[in-house]
Amino acid sequence: MPTLDESAKGGYFITVTPFSEDGSLDLESTDRLVDFYLEKGASGLTVLGVMGEAPKLTAEESRRYAQRVLTRVNDRVPVIVGASAPGFAAMRELAESVMGMGAAGVMVAPASSIRTDDHAYNYFEMVAETLGPDVPFCMQDHPLATGVQLPISVILRCIKAIPSCVMLKHEDWPGPGLAKLAAIRAASAGGETRRISILAGNGGGLFLPEELSRGADGAMTGFGYPEMMVDVCSAHTAGNIARAHDVFDAYLPLARYEQQTALGLAVRKHLLVHRGAIASAAIRKPGPKLSGADIADIELLIARQVRRLEELA
Amino acid sequence: MPTLDESAKGGYFITVTPFSEDGSLDLESTDRLVDFYLEKGASGLTVLGVMGEAPKLTAEESRRYAQRVLTRVNDRVPVIVGASAPGFAAMRELAESVMGMGAAGVMVAPASSIRTDDHAYNYFEMVAETLGPDVPFCMQDHPLATGVQLPISVILRCIKAIPSCVMLKHEDWPGPGLAKLAAIRAASAGGETRRISILAGNGGGLFLPEELSRGADGAMTGFGYPEMMVDVCSAHTAGNIARAHDVFDAYLPLARYEQQTALGLAVRKHLLVHRGAIASAAIRKPGPKLSGADIADIELLIARQVRRLEELA
Amino acid sequence: MPTLDESAKGGYFITVTPFSEDGSLDLESTDRLVDFYLEKGASGLTVLGVMGEAPKLTAEESRRYAQRVLTRVNDRVPVIVGASAPGFAAMRELAESVMGMGAAGVMVAPASSIRTDDHAYNYFEMVAETLGPDVPFCMQDHPLATGVQLPISVILRCIKAIPSCVMLKHEDWPGPGLAKLAAIRAASAGGETRRISILAGNGGGLFLPEELSRGADGAMTGFGYPEMMVDVCSAHTAGNIARAHDVFDAYLPLARYEQQTALGLAVRKHLLVHRGAIASAAIRKPGPKLSGADIADIELLIARQVRRLEELA
Amino acid sequence: MPTLDESAKGGYFITVTPFSEDGSLDLESTDRLVDFYLEKGASGLTVLGVMGEAPKLTAEESRRYAQRVLTRVNDRVPVIVGASAPGFAAMRELAESVMGMGAAGVMVAPASSIRTDDHAYNYFEMVAETLGPDVPFCMQDHPLATGVQLPISVILRCIKAIPSCVMLKHEDWPGPGLAKLAAIRAASAGGETRRISILAGNGGGLFLPEELSRGADGAMTGFGYPEMMVDVCSAHTAGNIARAHDVFDAYLPLARYEQQTALGLAVRKHLLVHRGAIASAAIRKPGPKLSGADIADIELLIARQVRRLEELA
Repeated sequence: MPTLDESAKGGYFITVTPFSEDGSLDLESTDRLVDFYLEKGASGLTVLGVMGEAPKLTAEESRRYAQRVLTRVNDRVPVIVGASAPGFAAMRELAESVMGMGAAGVMVAPASSIRTDDHAYNYFEMVAETLGPDVPFCMQDHPLATGVQLPISVILRCIKAIPSCVMLKHEDWPGPGLAKLAAIRAASAGGETRRISILAGNGGGLFLPEELSRGADGAMTGFGYPEMMVDVCSAHTAGNIARAHDVFDAYLPLARYEQQTALGLAVRKHLLVHRGAIASAAIRKPGPKLSGADIADIELLIARQVRRLEELA
Repeated sequence: MPTLDESAKGGYFITVTPFSEDGSLDLESTDRLVDFYLEKGASGLTVLGVMGEAPKLTAEESRRYAQRVLTRVNDRVPVIVGASAPGFAAMRELAESVMGMGAAGVMVAPASSIRTDDHAYNYFEMVAETLGPDVPFCMQDHPLATGVQLPISVILRCIKAIPSCVMLKHEDWPGPGLAKLAAIRAASAGGETRRISILAGNGGGLFLPEELSRGADGAMTGFGYPEMMVDVCSAHTAGNIARAHDVFDAYLPLARYEQQTALGLAVRKHLLVHRGAIASAAIRKPGPKLSGADIADIELLIARQVRRLEELA
Repeated sequence: MPTLDESAKGGYFITVTPFSEDGSLDLESTDRLVDFYLEKGASGLTVLGVMGEAPKLTAEESRRYAQRVLTRVNDRVPVIVGASAPGFAAMRELAESVMGMGAAGVMVAPASSIRTDDHAYNYFEMVAETLGPDVPFCMQDHPLATGVQLPISVILRCIKAIPSCVMLKHEDWPGPGLAKLAAIRAASAGGETRRISILAGNGGGLFLPEELSRGADGAMTGFGYPEMMVDVCSAHTAGNIARAHDVFDAYLPLARYEQQTALGLAVRKHLLVHRGAIASAAIRKPGPKLSGADIADIELLIARQVRRLEELA
Repeated sequence: MPTLDESAKGGYFITVTPFSEDGSLDLESTDRLVDFYLEKGASGLTVLGVMGEAPKLTAEESRRYAQRVLTRVNDRVPVIVGASAPGFAAMRELAESVMGMGAAGVMVAPASSIRTDDHAYNYFEMVAETLGPDVPFCMQDHPLATGVQLPISVILRCIKAIPSCVMLKHEDWPGPGLAKLAAIRAASAGGETRRISILAGNGGGLFLPEELSRGADGAMTGFGYPEMMVDVCSAHTAGNIARAHDVFDAYLPLARYEQQTALGLAVRKHLLVHRGAIASAAIRKPGPKLSGADIADIELLIARQVRRLEELA
């Protein structure tokens, strides 16, 4: 059974949660989606994140969905479960439940009420205490969603003091972004801290080549063509920076289109239906719907992407 | 079994959730607290609000606590259960559960992501759809906690379109406050809308006499001396405005002291222990602790309050 | 010419800016208002704060108003000028201008974009560099207005590193409030830092007796009956804590009424007109207007306050 | 002398403000920069926006810089001046001053305190009253910077009621973005409102081809290669959608790199120095500095962009 640790790398795909047209969990599509993700080269999966519509599930549904994913994955790759919650009791409850099912670790973002460095540090200290020493966790740095800016000094303090903090999901936008990533790497290179895993997802992956150059170990984000992460990471790891950029640039126009706040998840699910990974693009209410013009945009961008990838092949 | 409707009035006390020193639910104190509240003249109780540490309970604990309160109350007064949740699935789950136990209705605050009038209205339309037509609800207008300002026009739109919206918890601070209350009353007086119940709690009850003058039907707030609400409302209803102010002013110094953001709940629980209503002032982490200086302040204020109330007797 | 330094104490009154009915600066009322404030025992004045409608003045009007106040005060008490600005160039320009006219120092709040401890510290370091070593300044800690929480550690860091930071305006609500004040005093008592002046204004002065007990040197706030600050501070300094509370409690119902976000300034100007201190309660647009019901509330509260003060006399 | 009106289209370039290494205004570079922008095909210029470091200039410097730009432009294209200010008095003062110098109109963003639809509408009504009927203005819809979401209904209400509102700067991210643009166009197509100019800048121009397809009249944004806007708009206007995308995609990797919150302006000024448009990339404090790694990223991206543009030529 894989456990999350500091050596994690490659593409961790943030999974959508498939629903049927009537809004119920679509567990058959869940199996198909897991197969699709593994086929596309996922090094790991992250379930029940914001883009997984976690807050729209009941506690029972969350467990059922996580269980289905874990069973289908069957220990082939680590599965991280989003465990951010409005309180520590609910966080512990969910974490215990999914770890018992075979999750590799959990991911926690800072509470949006945090306003000072000590608040932030104390929050993660409490997260660690709540989860217990045997549950490795990924600190999710995502100011656009949380409103919280985690200073470099706080992240380093956590790395030093909290052994179960083994991964940083770097999505620091708006924020210092690449400079923050570089500073955290410099701290471990200089012996100040352990070296933890950093998976990048700044702006939904829009800075991936540069993040890899600054020391990210891979990417953690969604996107309907998640093989982009794998191919960019592979080329980069192989030292072929130009190739990493070529591939990235080919996907960039569509990846950028998916980064529309209100519409992003609808675009992503549309792409996954288009590719046969799930049966329906249904989103639980309240959620966006694509217009005809949106779909026309997407079709144009897919066609251009196909052509560009062929040119690169 | 009492049901919440537009005729609700008097003092609805927001209950604390008693914990033992070890942080577990203290169900014996829960019984004692219910007795205390009813003895002090509660017209209704509101459980699992922000000051009830609701986000720190697991779903199971929330149910257990609500059940205990409802059993002890035994239909003597209506019990409202806070059902604000990050998503509609969890809201439905909790509401169904507590209504099945005998709750009179639920209370829902707007999601903190709301930024426009239509968002706000659509949110409450969805709340009503989620709860179903048979679950009456109280709209909680509390910008300091939610960051959302509900315009008068949105509240009136909800009153017109959503029959199950039967009560407004008015806690509009910062906001137009008294003018908003007056405008909602003017709309029903002029035949534009139904007249719903409005229970006031602006600034934690710091504007109660003026709110009653503008047409509030009573108060919904916490405070360690909740009989203040009852006595102020009674005097006001009896037309004795001077008496209402005299009583209010006697409690005001301590009520104000309880309105310290970081410390308020600790002050309230300390007062309830002092009065024998609960066994321990324990607050689940993360939570504040009173210092010696805080306790000295409180003791001074209690002594002064006792003296002032004697002068008024 | 008085200069602001660490020894400042007593009541620093935050002045309103008087306008004529047509919205133009009313400089005659400005003179009358200065006389009124000095008569009521002001130890200092603070002009061009938020409640001074500073953002509604042109740079030229700000200078004209500050000049008029300074001329009328004629060095009898120190005058602090609000110099918060969206950029450092404008801050320097205003500060140079008013210091040249005889201001004793300036007051600066943190920029609302600040989100981390280092941002906050660096901001004040930059403020000090911008103002130059000869301009003493008061750090305004006012999270309700700025959205910024200044941790105790940042305030102490500023006190240690920035000699021109000589005063803290403590208005930490919502925030740790009294505990913060006590911690800053403990740091100087223990020799960790200089002892600077702390003037309290938490919740618009609603915690004054307790703030004085924790070590505040006085109060800095508005309120239409500013002699309250003087009388509470005097009684407290004289060791007559009961008297300090008696006086405070007598003013509390009206002081609390002035703390309605949307309406506060209109209430304050109404009181000042009522007392003959200014000619018109006009507020520059956009600004609130009192309703008949508001005015009825105020008249009732004034009458009750008069009676209560007579009882105490 | 060009006046801003509803027919404005093409590329309106948001100008940087050039400083010397010592932080003083570099007026010679200002001339050079104007020449550069006009050479690259600007249909108009926008000065003193957020990316023009407007808040870091004194009122006097703002006027001096605007005057220099206007003199150099010499009526060849319209110049819009950013006039957002914390109060209406300062807004009027700046607007009168720059309109007297020959500006074509001003641009105003909503105050960040706005939270309801009526607040938003009333704000722009007041802006129009402040500016007077003869000053055409561009409404800047930029939630990421202001925190304010302008609903479609509010924008349409402004278009209907305020004749001097002649342009919308569409930068609605996060927000409904393209759907909002389409809805505003549908309202004028259906005869519900006038048709005003809409210049797009969503995400700093990252959605330009799609915005043009939804009815934008052009682009208003910065970017060190502003000819991108011109070339994409021209191809689009000529009906060559594929060409518009090809050009856009060639610039996208670098344009995206410029959209790093903390670093964007430093990247932009670096590019303008690289291209000989200004003498120094100096940014007034507080401002970011590029690291060696940042510069290496930029050089790689420029080289790739050059190559890609050659392939397209």
